[in-house]
Order: sequence, then structure tokens, then C-alpha cells
Amino acid sequence: MYLSEILSSFICGKPDFDPQVRYLAKRSIVDTMGAMLAGSCTDVVKQLLPVYNAPGCCTLVGLKGTVSANNAAFLNGISGHELELDDTSSSNLGHPTVAVLPSVLAAGEERAASGEEVLKAFILATEVECKIGRICAAELHRRGWHASSITGVLGAAAGAGYLYGQDRDTMRNTLGIAASMASGVRENFGTSTKSVHIGKTAGDGVLAAQMASHGITSSPSALEGHEGYLREYAGFDGVTFGDDFARTLGAPYDLCSPGFAIKLYPSCSSTHRAIDALTELIRENELKPADIAKIEIGLSQSALRELVTPYPRDGEEAKFSIGFQIALYLNGLDNMPVNYREDVIRQPEIARIIQLTSMYNEPKYDNLPTDMGVGPAFGRITTVDGRVLTRERVYPDGHLTHPIPDQGIHDKYMKSALPVLGQEKAEELYRRLMALEEERDIRALLALCR
Amino acid sequence: MYLSEILSSFICGKPDFDPQVRYLAKRSIVDTMGAMLAGSCTDVVKQLLPVYNAPGCCTLVGLKGTVSANNAAFLNGISGHELELDDTSSSNLGHPTVAVLPSVLAAGEERAASGEEVLKAFILATEVECKIGRICAAELHRRGWHASSITGVLGAAAGAGYLYGQDRDTMRNTLGIAASMASGVRENFGTSTKSVHIGKTAGDGVLAAQMASHGITSSPSALEGHEGYLREYAGFDGVTFGDDFARTLGAPYDLCSPGFAIKLYPSCSSTHRAIDALTELIRENELKPADIAKIEIGLSQSALRELVTPYPRDGEEAKFSIGFQIALYLNGLDNMPVNYREDVIRQPEIARIIQLTSMYNEPKYDNLPTDMGVGPAFGRITTVDGRVLTRERVYPDGHLTHPIPDQGIHDKYMKSALPVLGQEKAEELYRRLMALEEERDIRALLALCR
Repeated sequence: MYLSEILSSFICGKPDFDPQVRYLAKRSIVDTMGAMLAGSCTDVVKQLLPVYNAPGCCTLVGLKGTVSANNAAFLNGISGHELELDDTSSSNLGHPTVAVLPSVLAAGEERAASGEEVLKAFILATEVECKIGRICAAELHRRGWHASSITGVLGAAAGAGYLYGQDRDTMRNTLGIAASMASGVRENFGTSTKSVHIGKTAGDGVLAAQMASHGITSSPSALEGHEGYLREYAGFDGVTFGDDFARTLGAPYDLCSPGFAIKLYPSCSSTHRAIDALTELIRENELKPADIAKIEIGLSQSALRELVTPYPRDGEEAKFSIGFQIALYLNGLDNMPVNYREDVIRQPEIARIIQLTSMYNEPKYDNLPTDMGVGPAFGRITTVDGRVLTRERVYPDGHLTHPIPDQGIHDKYMKSALPVLGQEKAEELYRRLMALEEERDIRALLALCR
Repeated sequence: MYLSEILSSFICGKPDFDPQVRYLAKRSIVDTMGAMLAGSCTDVVKQLLPVYNAPGCCTLVGLKGTVSANNAAFLNGISGHELELDDTSSSNLGHPTVAVLPSVLAAGEERAASGEEVLKAFILATEVECKIGRICAAELHRRGWHASSITGVLGAAAGAGYLYGQDRDTMRNTLGIAASMASGVRENFGTSTKSVHIGKTAGDGVLAAQMASHGITSSPSALEGHEGYLREYAGFDGVTFGDDFARTLGAPYDLCSPGFAIKLYPSCSSTHRAIDALTELIRENELKPADIAKIEIGLSQSALRELVTPYPRDGEEAKFSIGFQIALYLNGLDNMPVNYREDVIRQPEIARIIQLTSMYNEPKYDNLPTDMGVGPAFGRITTVDGRVLTRERVYPDGHLTHPIPDQGIHDKYMKSALPVLGQEKAEELYRRLMALEEERDIRALLALCR
């Protein structure tokens, strides 16, 4: 069987969804909903509203009015990604939830689907993008593609197609059409086009599913054929997939193993392990800003490649500065978007810590297995009184190996949701998302998000 | 300077447009308008109408109602490509006009631009896609990308950005955003997703320009940077562009040299040279169907790779059968979409000629310079009375080396336009398109196309 047929058979074959995968899915959904609400206030989303305002029945999270399903998926995808608050995955080496949740929400709203169906669609969408990611994300990453986008469009398409009630053949066409829609070059990182990649992925996923539902056909071999997706984007030629691959689908779901890492800070995921190691040292040793003489951080080449602005000039660059984030912590400031500002960066006590912080390559963190993501971080603090404190972090807080309790997810979500929705609506939305299966009609839930 | 800056400087630098390039541009525009009108009646366009019906001010050629600019560009792109009637280019190894004309028409209509501005935008759009094509199309083709789509999105974006009145910086952002939107894998050829590629290219070009006009940024190095367009799609790393490249822009325009090849038949461009060679032999020797014992055709590997259905079962496969088209000619039937039908293929006198026709590789046609396209064709007819007639064709009719007179373009256009618009409107549209500079407001012209 072709890869698109194996995936379609799985999606349309009424797979099981046990309580664990449902629970983890809802945590990712509520967490990314918070990211979308916070991101809906950003300049990029405001700039694009006039471009994506085709009227329709679908909610723009955090905004007024309703637009068409693919436009909603597009803008909600940008909202969810713009502030770097969305979860990450070592399987697709990117952001698994934000690329597919907007597609599933929009298609669900268009079809007045139940919460149960939307939840299932989300689990299947993430499973498709992550299992595809496990095949090719390392190579996508190496070549310079935005891996979240390239794998995400297949997941977004699968999730929308599921909610449109597609049979196996139509789902197969959906995946094949989506294979011809993947795009996003990493050269555009550091510009607003980075978030546009994610919006486009979610929106194109909806369009691919709509096209197939209206009779558009694609090649069964669009994924692994000689001139197909895996060859064009990742250089794989002559690869085939059979029962061994089919048996990996949902067994376990990628949401459960290796799982997604919920982000606690609005910054590049390559900063997170180092922040956790260093803040632990600071907390345990009750260090004050004035105690610090030097901070050194050992990282893999892969992580260092991403952290190109250790001495940031603005909030955008601050996302890639571990020193800035340690300075926030030492000075009792929240590590949230509200503080990623030029005037905060320039405060003398913040600027001083940034200057004391440096990074170096730790070769033993290079070339690790895929499930390690960008690899561990090694933190070393030298105090003014001459102590040297060290700590290694293999996985960040928020990873399944260091899970954060629901309360932690709630607190992070509320910081984003409160200013947009107010206390009452924000709390209600949280409760209902965490009991998503009980929603009779997703439209009522989404009406809460406006 | 970065490549995107060189292109932007050229586009925004008020380049010259001499009578020759204007004349050739109008011929391609009117020819593709005919293709769009004929294609607007196809199943694929009808299937996608419900998906792309977001209301707006832009014309769907050949159809009622108006939709948003990017949706109009999307559907008109599919209409123009679905019947294989659109022109071809050896520079982008694909279809230059159809990928950008829909974008230029939609953006022009949105802005109530003059015919003069739309004509200039079209010339600039084709120039961008073809000069990019000259850099990388051979490699795109070799790797299995749909080269028309990958190069076309940059042209479509440039043309729309020009009509939106963009300055150099905004145009540079437009091109960088478009670099993150290219897609289309050739594995989907032979399915309706092939035309979707072209629609998506035209529609995404409009979107990229709209995004930049609303303030979205992209990287100046999005085209040739280490993780940019030329590396990701074509494997080029470390290439740079300077004055030598800048001097090629508009000097001459690609429309003038090597020029686009207008298609006389609704079939794969790899069939055209052979058809011209063989129909010449038949005409000169006054052969009747009963005179033919055998037809042999020598082609390059590149052409043979495309002609995969020499013994067709349906109209779709007939596009790739030279024998079918020679049979039409010998039996006095028009080589137009109306005759690409199963019942025509099965007529005994048609089926007989198809069976008598075979192809072989002529190695001297392999590995020729890019300007030769897929290479020449060698035709050999053996008659029942033992004569062997041969003819070589280097370029097809419709290529600038074998130009067709305006009357020939008019006649082809009318075959497509007449059934959709009726005699009077079709003739008026032709006249006004061939005098496009004189239109005060493109909206009036496009209202004629509905």
C-alpha cells in the first residue's frame, strides 16, 4: 500500500483513543488556545486581518467577527505561533499543535461538529504530522525547511478531512493534494513570514481537504513516489512503507510518546533547558542579581544555530537570548511576552546579566538520537564570592519527563487569556476545553473565544 | 545586493517596454484568455467553485459572479491550465503566462488599473519568473518539481505587487514572502492537482503581494540565502548575483528572446514538434489515412518521459499521444479539446493510426542547451506503397522561430471563446485585448469576460 493509503486507512478505520491521549491532547489544545489569544493582539495578525477577512462562519480566536474556514485557520495559526508560546515536538522538530489545531477548529466549526469529534480530529492530525516527522523531519531540518510547516500541512489536511467525514479514497486524495502544498523556507526566520508559514500550513490543510471533498484527485504515490513529497523535500527516493509503519500509528500516539513539550516561556525552545538549569541553581542557592559574576551555558551545535541573538536589541531578538531570560528571573519579572520589550532589555540590572552570560558548544550534545530534540543544556554560574555552581538539563520543564501539573498549564493560559477575554470567560473557556468531549456543538465553545 | 533587491530595483525602476515586447505580451495574453474561457467549462473548475467563492470584486473568466482577488487568480489559473492550451517557455521549462496572468488581472481589477499598467505588470511578472527559471528551472525539472509553479509564484507576486504600487522595500518583501510559498510536486501530474498547482501559484502570488503591502516582512536573502528558495528547491548554495545578472533583466525581455511558444494544440508540449513534422509530410505528399503503413517518431529522453500514454484510453491520456493527434489530422478533425473524447479515440480510423504510430529515443536530442526545450523531433512515415518520408522539427509552430500570424492566434482564441461568450462579445474582447494599452479601466474589459 502507498503511504497515503496506510494513513487514510488508519484515520478512517475508527482507531481507539484512550484516556491518556485524550488528556494530553486537551492540555495541548488549551495551552495553544492561550497562545492564540495572546497572539491575536500582535501587529502581524492586525496587519493581515484585511487580507484574510472573507466572510464565513468561523471564529478568529480573540477577535470579533467570523471569516471563512481556511482564513480562520490561517489567522489563528499566526496568532498561535507569533509569540513562541506554542508547544514543541522532537518528532517533527517543530511545533505540532499550532499547525493543526486551527484547521481542526475551523473545519469543526464549519460542520457544527461535537467536541468529541474535534478532539479525535486533533489527535489524528497530530499523529499524521508527527509520524511523517519521524520519517523526515531531521532531514527537513538539515536542509533548511521549516519542518513544522512541511509536516504540518499533512496533519492539518487529515484533521479537516476527518471532520468533513471523508471516506478512505477522499482522505487519500486530501493527503496527496496537501503533499503539493507544503512550503516555508527557514531563511525567513526572524521575520514575520515565520508565523505566516504556520498560518499558511493550517489554512492550506483546510483547503486541501475541501478540494478533495469536492472531487479533486491526487496521485496515490504523492508522498513517496519518485517525484513526490518525501523525495522533493527530504531527498528520500525509493522508500516504501508497509505493515511495520502501519503498526506504529496510534501505538502509541505521538502525543503520549515521546509527547509534546509544553513551553513555559515565550522564547525559542533551544533556550528552555538552560533556563530551567540556571533558575534551579539560582533558587536552590538563593542567589541575588548582585551575587552573579558569570553565567556559562554549554549547548549542542543544533541549539547554538538557533540562538543567534544572545545580546538582544528588541523583543524579537530577546526570544533567542538566555541571558535576558535569566535576568528577568533574577529581577522578579515574569517570563512572558509583556516583558519582551526594548525598555526592559535596557534596564541596567537586566543589561548587566545579559552581558555576564555566554554560550559555548558542548560536543557530547551533538548528534544525539532524534527523541532528544536539540539536546541537553549545561549551566554554570560563578558567583562573586568564587563559588562555581553547575547543573545539566536533558529535557525542559513541560516535557513529559518533567510534566507540569494542570494548574501550571492553567496559570500560563490565564496570563494570556485574561487580558483578552476577562476573568469569567477565560475561566469558563479553560474548563470547557479541558472537558472538550462533553461539548455538543463546537460552535458554542468557539463563540466564547471572540 | 541580494537577488530580491536586484529584481525589486528593476521592477520599481520604471523599465522600458518597447513595441515588440508589448506586442508579444498581448499575443500571449489573448491566447491564454482563450484557454481560460475554454477551461472555465471543465469539471475541475466547477468542482472548486464552492471552495473559492469568497465574494469580492474580481472576475472569474467565463463564469458569472465576482470573487476575491486571490480566489479569482486561483480559479482563473486552473481554467487557463486545465486544457493544456496555454503557452510554454524553455526558460522556466513550463507555462509562463498562465501562472502570472490571473494574478495580474485580479490585482489590476482590484485596483481599477489601466490596461497600460496591467500590460506592464504582465511583462514584469513573466520577466521575473523566466529569469528565475533560467537560473534554476533545469534543476527544478530534474528534481521533480512542477517548474511552472515554483518559478511562477515569484512572477505572480511581482506582477501583483507592481499593480499595488509597491516601493522597492515592499516589493522586496513580496518576493521574499513568495519564496516561502512555492510548492507543487510532479508526482501529482495526471491528476486534477496538476492544474491546482497553477491556480495556487497565481493565488498565492496575489496573497504574497497583499501581505507585503500590509506590512509583513521577509528576509532580503530569502531567495539565495543558505536556507532560502534556490537552495531548498534547486540545491544551489553560495550562489550570488550582481550587475551581470541585473543587466539581463529586460535586455532583452524573455518574452522576446527566447520568447514563448504559443500552443496550437491542446496537448503536452512534447507532442508539438512531432505533429508539425508529420502533418507537413502528410500535407506535402497529399497522404490519405489509407496510404499510411507506419509512423515512427524520434525524440529526446526528456520528451519521452512526458509522453507516457501513446495508446490512450480517454481524453486525458490523449493529450500525451502523438498518434491520436495525427489521426485527427488525417481524418479532418480539429485538434481541439472538443475532440479529446473516448468515442473519438475508439473510431476505427482513429484507432488504426494510433496503433501504427511508435516512438523511439534519438540520443542526439538529449542534453541540448536549455533554449532547445525538450529538444527536436524526427518524423518518419512509411507508406503502403513503400515510400519512406522523413522530416526533422527543431522548434514547434508557435515558437518565435516559427511564428504564427495574429490571424492564427485569433482563430485558436475564437474556437475557445465563441461557445462561452458568443460571437460578438468574443470578437470585441479579442480586439480590446490586442489594444490593451488603450483601456482606461481594466474592470470594463474584464466585465466582458463573464
